[in-house]
Amino acid sequence: MPPRTVHIARPATTTPAASSDVVQTPARAAPSRSALDRLLDPRSIAVIGASTDPGKRGYQAIRALQDSGYRNPVYAVNPRGGTILGLRVLTGIGELPAGVDVALIALPGRAVPAALRELAAVGVAGAVVLANGFREAGPEGTRLQAELTAAITETGIRVIGPNTSGMLNAASGANLVGVPDVPAGPISAITQSGNMLISLLADNRALRGPGFHTYIGLGNQADVRYDECITHLAGLPGTGAIALHCEGLQDGRAFLAAAAEATRHRPVVLLRGGRSEAGQRTALSHTGSIAGSDAVATAVLTQAGVELVTRSDELALLAGVLATTAPIPAGRGVAVLSDGGGHATLAADALSAAGVELATLSAATRSNLRALLGPPAAIDNPVDVAGATDTDPTVFATAVELLMTDPAVGLVLLVGIYGGYHLRFDTQLRDAEDATAHRLLALTRQHAIPLLVQSCYAVDQPTNHQILRHGGVQVLSSIDHAVRAVAALHHRGTWLATADQRSTLRPPAPPTGAGTGHRGGLLDEPTARRLVEAAGLHTGPWTLAATLDEAAAAVADYGRACALKVVSPQVVHKSDVGGVQLHVTPDTVAAAWTAIADCVTDNVADAQITGVVVAPMARPGVELLVGATVDPIFGPVVAFGSGGVMVEALRDVAFRAAPFTHLEALEMIEETIAARMFDGYRHLPRVDRDTLAAFLVRVGHLAAHTPGLAELDLNPVIADDTGVLPVDVRIVLTDHSGPSTNQPPHSDR
Amino acid sequence: MPPRTVHIARPATTTPAASSDVVQTPARAAPSRSALDRLLDPRSIAVIGASTDPGKRGYQAIRALQDSGYRNPVYAVNPRGGTILGLRVLTGIGELPAGVDVALIALPGRAVPAALRELAAVGVAGAVVLANGFREAGPEGTRLQAELTAAITETGIRVIGPNTSGMLNAASGANLVGVPDVPAGPISAITQSGNMLISLLADNRALRGPGFHTYIGLGNQADVRYDECITHLAGLPGTGAIALHCEGLQDGRAFLAAAAEATRHRPVVLLRGGRSEAGQRTALSHTGSIAGSDAVATAVLTQAGVELVTRSDELALLAGVLATTAPIPAGRGVAVLSDGGGHATLAADALSAAGVELATLSAATRSNLRALLGPPAAIDNPVDVAGATDTDPTVFATAVELLMTDPAVGLVLLVGIYGGYHLRFDTQLRDAEDATAHRLLALTRQHAIPLLVQSCYAVDQPTNHQILRHGGVQVLSSIDHAVRAVAALHHRGTWLATADQRSTLRPPAPPTGAGTGHRGGLLDEPTARRLVEAAGLHTGPWTLAATLDEAAAAVADYGRACALKVVSPQVVHKSDVGGVQLHVTPDTVAAAWTAIADCVTDNVADAQITGVVVAPMARPGVELLVGATVDPIFGPVVAFGSGGVMVEALRDVAFRAAPFTHLEALEMIEETIAARMFDGYRHLPRVDRDTLAAFLVRVGHLAAHTPGLAELDLNPVIADDTGVLPVDVRIVLTDHSGPSTNQPPHSDR
Repeated sequence: MPPRTVHIARPATTTPAASSDVVQTPARAAPSRSALDRLLDPRSIAVIGASTDPGKRGYQAIRALQDSGYRNPVYAVNPRGGTILGLRVLTGIGELPAGVDVALIALPGRAVPAALRELAAVGVAGAVVLANGFREAGPEGTRLQAELTAAITETGIRVIGPNTSGMLNAASGANLVGVPDVPAGPISAITQSGNMLISLLADNRALRGPGFHTYIGLGNQADVRYDECITHLAGLPGTGAIALHCEGLQDGRAFLAAAAEATRHRPVVLLRGGRSEAGQRTALSHTGSIAGSDAVATAVLTQAGVELVTRSDELALLAGVLATTAPIPAGRGVAVLSDGGGHATLAADALSAAGVELATLSAATRSNLRALLGPPAAIDNPVDVAGATDTDPTVFATAVELLMTDPAVGLVLLVGIYGGYHLRFDTQLRDAEDATAHRLLALTRQHAIPLLVQSCYAVDQPTNHQILRHGGVQVLSSIDHAVRAVAALHHRGTWLATADQRSTLRPPAPPTGAGTGHRGGLLDEPTARRLVEAAGLHTGPWTLAATLDEAAAAVADYGRACALKVVSPQVVHKSDVGGVQLHVTPDTVAAAWTAIADCVTDNVADAQITGVVVAPMARPGVELLVGATVDPIFGPVVAFGSGGVMVEALRDVAFRAAPFTHLEALEMIEETIAARMFDGYRHLPRVDRDTLAAFLVRVGHLAAHTPGLAELDLNPVIADDTGVLPVDVRIVLTDHSGPSTNQPPHSDR
Repeated sequence: MPPRTVHIARPATTTPAASSDVVQTPARAAPSRSALDRLLDPRSIAVIGASTDPGKRGYQAIRALQDSGYRNPVYAVNPRGGTILGLRVLTGIGELPAGVDVALIALPGRAVPAALRELAAVGVAGAVVLANGFREAGPEGTRLQAELTAAITETGIRVIGPNTSGMLNAASGANLVGVPDVPAGPISAITQSGNMLISLLADNRALRGPGFHTYIGLGNQADVRYDECITHLAGLPGTGAIALHCEGLQDGRAFLAAAAEATRHRPVVLLRGGRSEAGQRTALSHTGSIAGSDAVATAVLTQAGVELVTRSDELALLAGVLATTAPIPAGRGVAVLSDGGGHATLAADALSAAGVELATLSAATRSNLRALLGPPAAIDNPVDVAGATDTDPTVFATAVELLMTDPAVGLVLLVGIYGGYHLRFDTQLRDAEDATAHRLLALTRQHAIPLLVQSCYAVDQPTNHQILRHGGVQVLSSIDHAVRAVAALHHRGTWLATADQRSTLRPPAPPTGAGTGHRGGLLDEPTARRLVEAAGLHTGPWTLAATLDEAAAAVADYGRACALKVVSPQVVHKSDVGGVQLHVTPDTVAAAWTAIADCVTDNVADAQITGVVVAPMARPGVELLVGATVDPIFGPVVAFGSGGVMVEALRDVAFRAAPFTHLEALEMIEETIAARMFDGYRHLPRVDRDTLAAFLVRVGHLAAHTPGLAELDLNPVIADDTGVLPVDVRIVLTDHSGPSTNQPPHSDR
C-alpha cells in the first residue's frame, strides 16, 4: 500500500457580491443529510448577533466567511438592521428563509435558549453557541446550561458549544472560528479550547504540514459530543487523520467505542489536558471537566488504537504525518540512512527509547550498500554514507532503493542534512537534489514503503523538500519529531494488523436479568467465590464449614495445611479482627477455630459467625493482583499487576476496559514489571502467559456483565506453571445492583 | 539577581585587503596566553593544504574566514603556490612567520604527523586536523592515530581532532568550520559531530535563540579533550552557557570534575549520543567511542550539575534559555499566567511531569488578581485571564507584576497567544503589545524574577516578541519547550543553592600506601568485613570460629539465633555449596557445623575450611542493596537500591560517583523505589534517611580510596529504625591492587 496522500483542493476565494440578496433561496438540504452533516458542512449560514464592530465575533465571523471563500448563502441577523460588509442585515430570526443549515449564535449566554426556539421555528438544523459563562462558571452557569440543554432537547437543534471557539470546514470555506488563513488539507481536528486551534495552525505552519479539513471546537459539549464527531470525521473521504484535544469526556465509553471503530479507518491522535492533579484543577475551571485517572485513561485509549500524545507540540506533527504516510507493516523494522554519524547515533537512541526496532539488513543489502557507498560507510543499520553523497546526492535515492527492497525494512528514515547539499557544499547540486526528491517519491510509491525525512535544512525550505512534501513525504527538522512520528506509524501498523483480534469497546449490553440478587455492599466470601466461579474462574477447592467438626473434616480431607477465614456479615476486614488462621493442620484445627471465634467476638460487637471458609494453603508462586472497578469516565475496567507486600510501593498495575480479548490481555500482562518474573525468575516457578490471559479475559467478562459490580479484588492471585489461583475474593456491589448501574454514571444520553 | 543577559557585539565585517601581505608580522602571543588560549582564540591562522577548488575545505576555510570578518593575518600554504581569494600562497610550512597561533590542516591523514613536526619548527601553538580515517576506521586508522599522538607528544602542539569539523570563534570571526552566517551570541558549544553544529545553528535559528560564541568540534580527541575545553569556556566572560554533544569520553572522571567546577559559574547542557545499545554500536563506528552504562552516566553527570537532554532538539533551546535567563531561586515555585484554559491545563500537566512546583499564591495576590481580572478569571495558579486582556494587553504586565511580588513565585511563565493580540483581534493593539513588552523587561529586572513566554504567535515574529528576546526574555512556540526550559532553570537554582554541599568530583588522590596487602580476587568474608569496618562501616557482631567449640560458644554468647557461613579460600558461592546455615541455636549448632563441613567437602574438591563466620540473624527490616564498582568511564561509583528477591526484576538502583557528600547520598536515596518504604510502609520499620546517607557516604569513601577495589557488594543491607546493617560483605580486588589501578582505566593522560 503506497503512502496515502490526500490533497484537498482549496476553493478559489470568491468575494461575495457586494450586496447579497438575502431572499435568495438556500440550497435545500438533501433528504439524506443528517442534522450533524448539515451542521458540519453547512450549505447556508446565519449569524445571529451580527455586528458592525470589527472587534466583535458577530463581525469577524462574516468577515472570515468572506475571506475563506464561502460561496453559499450567509445571513446576518441583528435587531438594528443595516448592512455589514455588504450584507443586508435581517432584524429578526423570523425573517430567515426556511431550512438554514447552521446558525452561529454570537449572543450573550442568557439569550441563547430563546434564540434556539426561534431558530427551530424556521427549521434551522444546527447552531454554534460561542458564549461562555455556562457549566464552567459555577452554580449560576450550571443553571444556565441546564436551561440550554432543555431548549436543545425541546427543539432538536444540534448544538456545538457553548463556550466554544466555533467550527470550520476548510474545504467549503465555512469558517466559523474567525481565524484567517487556514490551509486546506487532510487533518480534521476537535478541541475543547480555541487557543488549541491556534496552536495546531501555528505548529502545522512551522512544520509545513499538510493543512486542515474540518475543525470542531466542542466547548462544554451541551449537545454535540466527541464520539459522534469522531465517527462523522472518520467517514469523510477528505479526512486523512483526526487530531483531538480534550480535557474531559462526558461518556468515555462511547468515546472509546467511536475511537476504536474510527481508528480502523483513520488514524486518531489525542492530546489530553488534565493528566496531572494541577492540570485537572485547571481543567475543572476551564471547561468544567473531570479528567479521572490518568493511568486508566492512557491504558484504555491506547487499547482503542488512539495515538496518545503528551507533548502539545506533537499533535499537529503526528496528525500531519499520519494523514499522509502509510503505517509500518507489522513485523518490519526501520532503516535509518544518515549522512553523519552524530545524527545516526541520536536517531538510533531515540528509536530505541520509543520501542521501535531497527531492521536487520540482509547480507545482500549490506553488500550492495558497501559497493555503492565505499569503504568508509557504515552499512549496518543505521547506514551512514560517510561522505559518499557529498558530491552526488543522487546516491541517496539508490541507497533508499536498496533499503526498500530489503524484506526486513518497513520504513526508511533519512537523517542528517539531506536536501541541504546545495546550501552546505555547492549550489550546483541543487538540480541533483530536486531530481533525487522526485526519485524518492517514485520509490516510496513503487515499493509501497513509507519514507520520512529529517534534515537540519528543513528550516531553509529548499525546493527539494517542498517536492517531497507535495508528494506526501514529510520533512522534519527535529530527529525527535521524526522518531516520534515513526513510532506512531509503527503503533498503527501493529494495531491494524491485529484489529480483528481486538474488542470493539462498545458499552456492554445492559444485563437482562434482575441483578445479582444480592444487596449492595461487601459480599461475604462464599457468595463472592460462587459469583466468581459462575463466571468460569476457578478459585481452588474450598469448603464453608458451619461447625468445628465440618472444619476438621475439611482440613483432613484436603490432606494439606489450610487457611481458615471467618464468614460474618459484621466483619469487613477479616485479618484485622483475628478472623484468619493460616497453616492449619488436623492437629491445630480446634485451636484455630476457637481462636477465630474468640478474636472476632472480642473485636466486633454482636458479630454473628456464619462459619469459616476452609481452603488449602496456596503453593508458592508469583504473587499477582487482579481487580476490577467501574471507572467514572470509562466504565468497567480490569487492573492487573504485581501483588504481595510491595504492591503500593511498586505501583505496578496495567488497565484494560472490559470486556477485552485474549490479545489485549496478553498486551496488558507485558506492560507490567510482574511479567519480568514469568520466565522462571530466581526460585519462582514459570508462569504461562496464555493461561493467565484467559483468566483475565474471564475477569473482564465478569466485570462488564455483573449487574451492580462496584469492586472486585482478587489479591493475591498465585500464578505458577500449573495455573492461576485467587487466594482471596472480595466483591463490593453498588447499593442498587440493578442492571442500569452497570452503565458509566457520567453518561448523559 | 536580574536575569543575566549576555550580548556579544559581533565585529563589523571587514573584508581583508584584496592581496594581504603575508610577511606582515603576526600579533605576538602575549606571554600569558596558553597554547589552548591561542588555539581557541587565534590571532593568526595558517591554512595548510589551501586550495583553489571551491569544493575543498582548503578553499572554504579561507572563504569562511573572510566572510566572517576575521581581521588577523591568514596564511595559505600549498606547494603549488599562486593566490587563493586574493591571498598569496606560501609553498611550504617553513615559509610561515614564527609564532602563528593556529594551523588548519586540510591534508590527508597520512601527511599530518610530518606536518605537525614542520609546524612545531616555526613555533605554531595549535592545529585543527580535519582528516578522518583515524581511530574510528579500524586497525589501520588506529595505527595512524598512534603516529599522530606520537607527533603531538613530541612537538607539544595542541591539536583539535582528527576527524573534526573544526572550530570557530564568532566574536573574532575565526571561523574554521566553513559554515556561513553563524550569529554571534552567548552560547559556546563542543560537539563530536559537524552535523550537530548544523543542527544547533538550525534550531537556534528556528527558536530565534541568542547565538554563539565559541564552537569546538572535538572529533577523535587525540589531544584536546572535553574537560579542558569546558574549563576554558567556563572562564570566558562572553560565554553564557556551554552546550555539549558527545558520544564518548576518554576520561569521564576528568570530565565530571571539569563540569562540576564549570557549572558553578556557567550552565552546562549535555546531549549524549550512544545511550542505547543500537546507539552505542553506531557511535563506535562514528567516533570509535565507548559509551558505557547509560544509568551510571546519567546519574554522575547530573551529580556534576550538568543539565542532561535526551532530545537533540532541546540542546540549542536549553543553552539559549540558560545563557540568558536567571535560575529559579531554590524553594520558590512557578507562576503560570495564561489567556486560555487549554494552554493553562497543558502547562500545568507538563510542569507536573517535569517535577516543577506551581507556586501557591498568597491571599493578597489572589485578591489583587481578582480585582484586576474580574469574575471570569481563574486566580489560582495557573492564572487564566479569561478574556480580561483581549481588548487591553497591558493588563498582562500588571498581572505579571502582581505575580512577581508574591514571595512564593520564582519565575513567571506566560502561555497562550501573548503578543499576538494585534494579529488575532485588532491591529490597533500593536502599540500596546510593544509597550507591554518593554514593561515586562523592566519588571523582570526590577524584581529579579525570571520570565519566560510561550506564544502560539512566536512563529509570526511580532515586534513585541523581538523586544523581549533582545532584552534576554526568550519567547517560545511550544509549551513543552517552555516547560523543559523552566525545569532546567529550576534544576540549576536548586543545584546552585546547595553547591557548597556537593562534591568537587575531582579524581580521588592516588592512595599513598602500598595497597590493601591482599592478593587480587575475592576476599574471604572475615577479611572483607575487617576492610569494611576499617572504613567505619559497622557490620554487626560476628566471630570467626575455627572449631565447633568456638562456634557453639559464639552462638551461646549472642543469645539469639545465628547464621553460620563457611570460610574457605576454595569457596566462591557459599550458599550454592551448602556453606551457609541459618537460624542456628545452641541446640542445633553441632548439626549445623557438621552439615557445613560435609556439604562443602562433598561439593568442592580439596576445600580447606578455615572456619565459620558466626553472626546473629538480622532483625527484619527493609532489604536494601549497596554496592560499589569501578565504572570504565567514570571511575569509582556507588550503587544503592532495593534488595531482596525482586532486585533484578525491579532494576531499582541509583548511582553516584564516589566519594560523595551527605546531601548527594540523600538525593540518591530519594531516586529509588526503596525510599517509598522508609516512612513506615505496611509492617516494615521506619528507616532513618540520615543514618542511611551517612552509611552510603562511608561506602563512597571506601570505594574511592581502597587501592585495587574492583567490586564491593553489601547485599542485603537491612535497614530499620535502629540503623543499617550489611548481612553479607563481598569484596573483589583487581589482580594488581596497587595504588594506580584506582584510576579510571580509560584515562590516557
